[in-house]
Amino acid sequence: GSSSYTTSSHSSKLLFRQLFEKESSTYTYLLADVSHPDKPALLVDPVDKTADRDFALVKELGLKLIYAINTHVHADHVTGTGLIKTKDPSVKSVISKSSNAKADLFVEPGDKIYFGDLFLEVRATPGHTVGCVTYVTGEGPDQPQPRMAFTGDALLIRGCGRTDFQVSCLVEVQRCFTSLCIHRQDTNKFIFTLPKDTFVYPAHDYKGFTVSTVGEEMVYNPRLTKDLETFKGIMENLKLAYPKMMDMAVPANMVCGLQDVDGIAKAC
Amino acid sequence: GSSSYTTSSHSSKLLFRQLFEKESSTYTYLLADVSHPDKPALLVDPVDKTADRDFALVKELGLKLIYAINTHVHADHVTGTGLIKTKDPSVKSVISKSSNAKADLFVEPGDKIYFGDLFLEVRATPGHTVGCVTYVTGEGPDQPQPRMAFTGDALLIRGCGRTDFQVSCLVEVQRCFTSLCIHRQDTNKFIFTLPKDTFVYPAHDYKGFTVSTVGEEMVYNPRLTKDLETFKGIMENLKLAYPKMMDMAVPANMVCGLQDVDGIAKAC
Ligand SMILES: [Fe+2]
Ligand SMILES: [Fe+2]
Repeated sequence: GSSSYTTSSHSSKLLFRQLFEKESSTYTYLLADVSHPDKPALLVDPVDKTADRDFALVKELGLKLIYAINTHVHADHVTGTGLIKTKDPSVKSVISKSSNAKADLFVEPGDKIYFGDLFLEVRATPGHTVGCVTYVTGEGPDQPQPRMAFTGDALLIRGCGRTDFQVSCLVEVQRCFTSLCIHRQDTNKFIFTLPKDTFVYPAHDYKGFTVSTVGEEMVYNPRLTKDLETFKGIMENLKLAYPKMMDMAVPANMVCGLQDVDGIAKAC
Repeated sequence: GSSSYTTSSHSSKLLFRQLFEKESSTYTYLLADVSHPDKPALLVDPVDKTADRDFALVKELGLKLIYAINTHVHADHVTGTGLIKTKDPSVKSVISKSSNAKADLFVEPGDKIYFGDLFLEVRATPGHTVGCVTYVTGEGPDQPQPRMAFTGDALLIRGCGRTDFQVSCLVEVQRCFTSLCIHRQDTNKFIFTLPKDTFVYPAHDYKGFTVSTVGEEMVYNPRLTKDLETFKGIMENLKLAYPKMMDMAVPANMVCGLQDVDGIAKAC
């Protein structure tokens, strides 16, 4: 219905920018509370290749970057977190505790990440990786309305992230099934229960979409609208190639994207 | 100052989507008045390669597409206007009268294009091409706030479109200078006089930016902030290659992107 398809979010405090990295088709998000004298800001899913661009924009807009946050340990690109920390060591890296990656701060489902008067809520959306979380803008008089969900790869526009990364389907059928169940059930539980007009901002899009809504995905998502058995069938038959950058990106992203020659974290 | 750097536009009526075409790095914009029973919608700068995607999205969102609008005769991609009209012949193609291209409707500076209760104003911003216009959301209680400017190639984020397309610098120095003067002066006159918090939505971005503001570009645009002689010097020394798609795209775009074997317009 029409209630699902509203205009962009409104807040008297929020500055918001969506940024694209072409090679991996990754979206990075910049959010700041510009009503606060410091203009505290955070980046969601920065990429190493565009860290200079993002850092320059933060400076031009007069923001104080306090957090560089990842939705999960990415397998297709190296996070920009480490590079941003070398540019400004006061920035804190943030990732979920369940990711088992290194960072300055670890978040768990239910935690709130404040920047000025605004905040993001952490919701568990595992399945693409064990530690995948979705960050959702808060509820309250000054928070953006409609709400905004940064879903990482758990929920993509008319799709979802692959579920074969951290389990081997061939040797661990049961774990793979569990991963699929978790993916679909937790996405339904923690994203599709949000108001229908909530904006969905994914970590990637390959067709040029920039945003969707919970209401739209509940109707048109070709995977997550299916019953569980159909969903499993779809995900098990994707026959996707091994990700080109996985062997390099995952170890790097476990340590914020920067490691020295011995693989020791330099900037987490 | 902070007044230039606000959050996204707010309107109780506007549905807004930014869409990207990767090959030519083109942004297409979908706007609709969802408060109106018909949900009348328009597309700004659709691309032939993504016309199916855009048309499907319009259907999924339950919109009634009434206009397919171009900011100018593009040289780097073929407009999706003609293809969209073959899918839905009730859609009217729109371009500026000064473009000399074919279309169903021609607009001139000062004209208003209504979709439901919302409208776009037409502003002359020639220089990249003679017929370049910028479409700006209206002023009024129900119109989006801050305003939104769809600048085509006249004003890009931290840049502007090349000014050597429709004049030959080598043989027509004076016309080229005129084009450069027009470009900078009209952009200053018709875009930089908008409120500083006006969002700038360009036809292209090559670095992954999705939006800027008038206030930001007035401070950080490396070309349009320069005095006229410096601007001319920059634009004359870009030494850009002849656009790959120009010889195909310009004739096609003069007739809405579709022509038969004799070059006769099929769907304008
Ligand atoms: Fe991922
Ligand atoms: Fe152009």
